[in-house]
Amino acid sequence: MLASIAHRVPPRGYGPWEQVASTLAEGLVARGHDVTLFATADSTTSGRLHAEAPAGYEEDPTVDAKVAEALHIAAVFERADRFDVISNQFDFLPLVFSRLTSTPVVTTIHGFSSERIVPVYRAYDDVAHYVAISDADRHPDLTYAATIHHGIDVDAFTPGAGDGGYLLFLGRIHPDKGTATAIEVARRAGLPLVVAGVVHDAAYHRREVLPHVDGDRVRYVGPVGPAERDRLLGGARALLHLVDFDEPFGLSVAEALVTGTPVVAYARGSMAELVRPGVSGFLVADVPGAVEAVAATAGVDRAACRADAVARFGADRMVDDYERLFARVAGAPSPASIASRSRTA
Amino acid sequence: MLASIAHRVPPRGYGPWEQVASTLAEGLVARGHDVTLFATADSTTSGRLHAEAPAGYEEDPTVDAKVAEALHIAAVFERADRFDVISNQFDFLPLVFSRLTSTPVVTTIHGFSSERIVPVYRAYDDVAHYVAISDADRHPDLTYAATIHHGIDVDAFTPGAGDGGYLLFLGRIHPDKGTATAIEVARRAGLPLVVAGVVHDAAYHRREVLPHVDGDRVRYVGPVGPAERDRLLGGARALLHLVDFDEPFGLSVAEALVTGTPVVAYARGSMAELVRPGVSGFLVADVPGAVEAVAATAGVDRAACRADAVARFGADRMVDDYERLFARVAGAPSPASIASRSRTA
Repeated sequence: MLASIAHRVPPRGYGPWEQVASTLAEGLVARGHDVTLFATADSTTSGRLHAEAPAGYEEDPTVDAKVAEALHIAAVFERADRFDVISNQFDFLPLVFSRLTSTPVVTTIHGFSSERIVPVYRAYDDVAHYVAISDADRHPDLTYAATIHHGIDVDAFTPGAGDGGYLLFLGRIHPDKGTATAIEVARRAGLPLVVAGVVHDAAYHRREVLPHVDGDRVRYVGPVGPAERDRLLGGARALLHLVDFDEPFGLSVAEALVTGTPVVAYARGSMAELVRPGVSGFLVADVPGAVEAVAATAGVDRAACRADAVARFGADRMVDDYERLFARVAGAPSPASIASRSRTA
Repeated sequence: MLASIAHRVPPRGYGPWEQVASTLAEGLVARGHDVTLFATADSTTSGRLHAEAPAGYEEDPTVDAKVAEALHIAAVFERADRFDVISNQFDFLPLVFSRLTSTPVVTTIHGFSSERIVPVYRAYDDVAHYVAISDADRHPDLTYAATIHHGIDVDAFTPGAGDGGYLLFLGRIHPDKGTATAIEVARRAGLPLVVAGVVHDAAYHRREVLPHVDGDRVRYVGPVGPAERDRLLGGARALLHLVDFDEPFGLSVAEALVTGTPVVAYARGSMAELVRPGVSGFLVADVPGAVEAVAATAGVDRAACRADAVARFGADRMVDDYERLFARVAGAPSPASIASRSRTA
């Protein structure tokens, strides 16, 4: 398992790529697989850990990203013959090593940071096994082995009653994430809004968010840790996820759903794959639609919302999907066929 | 031959790494070797050209450096079994591929851009064949196969009479390069100074250089092409190379010497390996020493200066050195032993 080294695995705070690598590695170890996690030295895993970088390059200014990445990726490929499969959760750079080993490399594409990196994916399309994290994020030029939605540790999220009397915005404070849109929708819906997340665009925060923060109708609580996150999600009437780009996946949406909190989202990117209209929230096209949807969330059955989300976005389902794919590309019998053979033997 | 792709090979203007790759590739082809140059698509060579990047990332803003470098380096290693030896003129990134092939990789270290990249060189010290470009640039932690000074195409530089009546500064306008020091030395020596080169530090240029430019005692002629460079070098009484760092090599110093123009240099970095005191210039410690040395350059025999430089910094000598090293690491008989066998056969 080749993780990103921007952050530790699992991440202390932000770090969706590192979170997915951790959840998948731990799930595979729990099923008896022999997993080596290539990550920063301060990472933790119940499998084996191999580290080249002392810490994440976003967390330790003495770590040179280019140098650390090069040593980190090479460490996996220099040991490739010890592994049945390499799970690349790292972005495009490991692809250019993949023709130099016969060990299959499964590359999870966590999103295209820019159209400029697509040529590398295209160049390795014939040898790569690409995993899309949503059907919406599939690039038309690439051949995919599977779409595998992210899964989360559902036990870390408590079923919530949604009785806090507020709507929730959870994410980076940035125009892309639609913080100002959420403020506008909450105002029109006549409900208070809690804004949680790290400021990624200070000018936007000052101009579009802070003037509305009055500690009552709009409260800004800053970045939140896991416990506070769980409490805020479970107490919300709904999560407003009105993002202004085609999001490849949305971990916070899955987390909200698992607490039973419905999501009101713009109908773009992966949202149609995450939110089941009527069951777990609503997909809308504009601010008036979002205001209407907020009213309709009162009718959502939170237990049904949670059950649907646990089935579709629980770690178990993700581990199932990857386990099946890894077995297939490694040319090994799949867990299902092993079980079937045991039964007939 | 894995060249840098910051610029085309050979470079149109600045591009010392690309210049060395070109000179070496052409020299090897002329001796009958089968050379494939991995470089940008607009490069030219009398050998074979393999290109992944359409143009240099410093020359074409549509080229993403990280993407282009990854595809470029991988292209060499994916074809490694076709080659007896890989000559890496690219910096540290190719090293991390070098354990994945049995083809020997000879890495010319063109200087350490930062102490932060040293860990990569250290990590591959056991498999690498490092070439230092001067003894002064050898890092104490590394094992070197050889020191090979750069060589230049001596036919591109005309013997000059040094009768232009001026001293010359040739290089980037930057504090590191000592432009202001050269101005001061020329003033005290009572000789006009011609300053040629691209401005790399605009504030320094405005503050320390422009106030002295009067078109007479100090002339600034901007960056110069090959013909103008040759003319300026050959006409100079001396080249002032009073750089404020330990320069790993100095191509412009070698070029001056080949035109017969002596060099006055600070005694640091590689300068003691380039300049032969009394024969081809002087090594000094400070501004008064430099002023004295300028006067002494009148006694330098320009023909002897050129002859010494042609022998030590001509392309032929560099190609000899690399040819011998490549033969050694490839486990092939060296050209000398082939010749000797032919004689005895």
